[in-house]
Amino acid sequence: MKKALIASTALVLTAGVAAADVTISGYGRTGVIYYENTAAEDAAGVNESQVVGRLRMNIDAATSTDQGVDFGARFRIQWDQNSDDAGQLNAGKLWVTSNGLTVEVGNVDTAFDSAALLYASELGAFDRSFGNSRGAFFAYDADAYDNENYVGIAAKYEIAGVSVMASYVDPDQSGLNETGLGTSEEFGLSASYTWNDALELSAAAVMDGAGIEDNDQYFVGARYAVMPNARVGLNWIDNGEVLGLDLGNTVTLYGDYTLADGMTNIEAYVANNSADFNESDNAFGIGVNYDLGGARLGASIHRDYDELVTADMGVRFDF
Amino acid sequence: MKKALIASTALVLTAGVAAADVTISGYGRTGVIYYENTAAEDAAGVNESQVVGRLRMNIDAATSTDQGVDFGARFRIQWDQNSDDAGQLNAGKLWVTSNGLTVEVGNVDTAFDSAALLYASELGAFDRSFGNSRGAFFAYDADAYDNENYVGIAAKYEIAGVSVMASYVDPDQSGLNETGLGTSEEFGLSASYTWNDALELSAAAVMDGAGIEDNDQYFVGARYAVMPNARVGLNWIDNGEVLGLDLGNTVTLYGDYTLADGMTNIEAYVANNSADFNESDNAFGIGVNYDLGGARLGASIHRDYDELVTADMGVRFDF
Amino acid sequence: MKKALIASTALVLTAGVAAADVTISGYGRTGVIYYENTAAEDAAGVNESQVVGRLRMNIDAATSTDQGVDFGARFRIQWDQNSDDAGQLNAGKLWVTSNGLTVEVGNVDTAFDSAALLYASELGAFDRSFGNSRGAFFAYDADAYDNENYVGIAAKYEIAGVSVMASYVDPDQSGLNETGLGTSEEFGLSASYTWNDALELSAAAVMDGAGIEDNDQYFVGARYAVMPNARVGLNWIDNGEVLGLDLGNTVTLYGDYTLADGMTNIEAYVANNSADFNESDNAFGIGVNYDLGGARLGASIHRDYDELVTADMGVRFDF
Repeated sequence: MKKALIASTALVLTAGVAAADVTISGYGRTGVIYYENTAAEDAAGVNESQVVGRLRMNIDAATSTDQGVDFGARFRIQWDQNSDDAGQLNAGKLWVTSNGLTVEVGNVDTAFDSAALLYASELGAFDRSFGNSRGAFFAYDADAYDNENYVGIAAKYEIAGVSVMASYVDPDQSGLNETGLGTSEEFGLSASYTWNDALELSAAAVMDGAGIEDNDQYFVGARYAVMPNARVGLNWIDNGEVLGLDLGNTVTLYGDYTLADGMTNIEAYVANNSADFNESDNAFGIGVNYDLGGARLGASIHRDYDELVTADMGVRFDF
Repeated sequence: MKKALIASTALVLTAGVAAADVTISGYGRTGVIYYENTAAEDAAGVNESQVVGRLRMNIDAATSTDQGVDFGARFRIQWDQNSDDAGQLNAGKLWVTSNGLTVEVGNVDTAFDSAALLYASELGAFDRSFGNSRGAFFAYDADAYDNENYVGIAAKYEIAGVSVMASYVDPDQSGLNETGLGTSEEFGLSASYTWNDALELSAAAVMDGAGIEDNDQYFVGARYAVMPNARVGLNWIDNGEVLGLDLGNTVTLYGDYTLADGMTNIEAYVANNSADFNESDNAFGIGVNYDLGGARLGASIHRDYDELVTADMGVRFDF
Repeated sequence: MKKALIASTALVLTAGVAAADVTISGYGRTGVIYYENTAAEDAAGVNESQVVGRLRMNIDAATSTDQGVDFGARFRIQWDQNSDDAGQLNAGKLWVTSNGLTVEVGNVDTAFDSAALLYASELGAFDRSFGNSRGAFFAYDADAYDNENYVGIAAKYEIAGVSVMASYVDPDQSGLNETGLGTSEEFGLSASYTWNDALELSAAAVMDGAGIEDNDQYFVGARYAVMPNARVGLNWIDNGEVLGLDLGNTVTLYGDYTLADGMTNIEAYVANNSADFNESDNAFGIGVNYDLGGARLGASIHRDYDELVTADMGVRFDF
């Protein structure tokens, strides 16, 4: 068996022996999140301010064949503060790519979760926003892989600013467990288009999200660079329904502005969600990120749909 | 403490600073396996075709001493589709090697499981064969390490085409758990010889396989290259017995033939097993592998001892 | 996202592109430990001699910012012979360092456990000593991370031979679990000074060790190089008390001597512990290590406070 050495792609390429390579990339982030208690949490004595943190490492292996087809695979190790250590090592994902088409099998990224702009209203070092989807759908599983017969297949095609993705998840391919919540097959689709680095368009849909029958969700979003250092975006999401509970539609207006120093980025959003169980239909937040070059300091403050205030401050670095 | 850097062996050696190095190697494979249902499975509604996949990464660390003795260790991360994520990170193996002699301690490869030719009749991208051993014996544990007091020791010696290996496994070295199934100490031995790249001979034995008393198993095999691009082999295996159930003897005739393109390899086997509980004494299979250079496409079709048909198609890549 | 390549720091630095790097370092050790049985263990049939081993791999990621601040993080994979495979992948630690000050968050090293000289009386390939602390305190958690709301913060400052460290551990930052054993917040402090490579001084204290109220522990130690190849040290430890059980004070006299070959190191200690439950107040041991260059052979023999004899022999290599 040919033994793959860990080395940088660059080094391997200059040596002219291409072959296989393995890389580790990821990020770390740490800081403090304050979240105003509900009356019940206050009575129980929950601490409103807690240290939070995440460490993610993706171990990626890839190999090229003589025919120009590339094969690869990923394991992810992820630890979140306030989680136990089960599920830190995630189920594998395998992929093959050729001529712009990539097919993934296993613990795949799904089309809806990967939709461009879906998370574009997130703020601060911890990427939090109440303008995100509230719906339930499958995604790359970065925690304990509870359902051992879960299988996902995804396909992605990119050409000239257009990106199209489809995904299919069978929560139990054994066929033995066909009833109950979350046992349906999920099908998702997303597409995005970028024009001239100025206009971004995105749309996505998912049927039977998270394997829940009739939990269909839809998304359209657009963002436009009104100035070289300022962007404005608008997202519309139908969050679907779970067990008869309608999660409403969400409309999120968001934008960001980079100061003249080129390192400070101010961001904000206002979101409206139509679900009946909200205390308030509106949530909003404002945040700031300061680029350290390789790392960023971030802070944000939000009010959620229960009219509770939450704020965070922290640092994130990528490697 | 000296900090070991991850770098390719080659690069370290050319730098002339030997020292320690860490590498990650392994393989990924994915595809579909069809397996004809038994009547009971049919009634339960089991899906006959399922997506299968495996991702294996071996993390190997090694260091050389001034005396010419090498030390090393391995962790393996392995994920199999349709397994939960417990046991993905396997127990460690440590080894020392000098002058052709290697000694392993911990989660070791065993002599019987490592016998040359034992798995030589396997077909396709998933390396499946009913001509394999049906017996129970210990091997490197790539799944959950259930018995925490399990310890293995193995020794391997190679010289001039001859390879000899012995292994010893104590399923519970604490000494507290000396009764019940699987608590005996297993002892295995194997030897192989290769002549002129044309003739391969192999033999192995294991006593108290898988820690089960009197579960002794034996194997002899030979393979000969009748043409530069065609080989024929014959394996004989006594599969031992478990709890009074005799698993019979297996005789497997197998061969492979590489087409003139040098990339397509046709393989086949016929196996006969004498166990009383078989529906049929014969199983057989035929398969093909197509070499992509760094990856291979494979397919195979088999009939098992219950006269059920199974087929697979998939891709495997090494890194 | 910038993709970090695994490569040696040295190689990256000579390439002059600093950025992020990931390294894997650690050690392996294996051998045999003999431990004389108590009467109860003898009756149960426990084996007195057992194979022991450990494999540790630290996966370290780090990145430098333009401002001269470094960020980094660590996962550790560790396997110990005679442990099951849960908890092999440890909770993450994140750190930031600048101008000699390092702050850690998450699964941190604690000040008391990191005190210089605290473990200086350890012998042989397995680093064992009855002159160590007998107290209970938090440390980097290299096994299952049971308490998911555990959080640690540590700060370390080094300048001109002086090193100062403080650590704080909250076993449950959720605030929901404030009663019972081990739920208090632990605070630790340590300081050390090295003069001319000849004199080492160290002191440390920990309040509410291991989250146990009033379990306060103290340590002072000193070591002096009486000759270039011989050192003598003295440690004093107040081991605190757990649930009203006083663990006594420990005084340990220890030393080591390197033979003229420069590779053989003889070590020994005598320890006195004042706890009431000891069979004998004195424990002692003598050991030897032989440097292979990249690995070491070691052996030691001890008598513990129950007057039982234990001995070990093994090899350890670093990578």
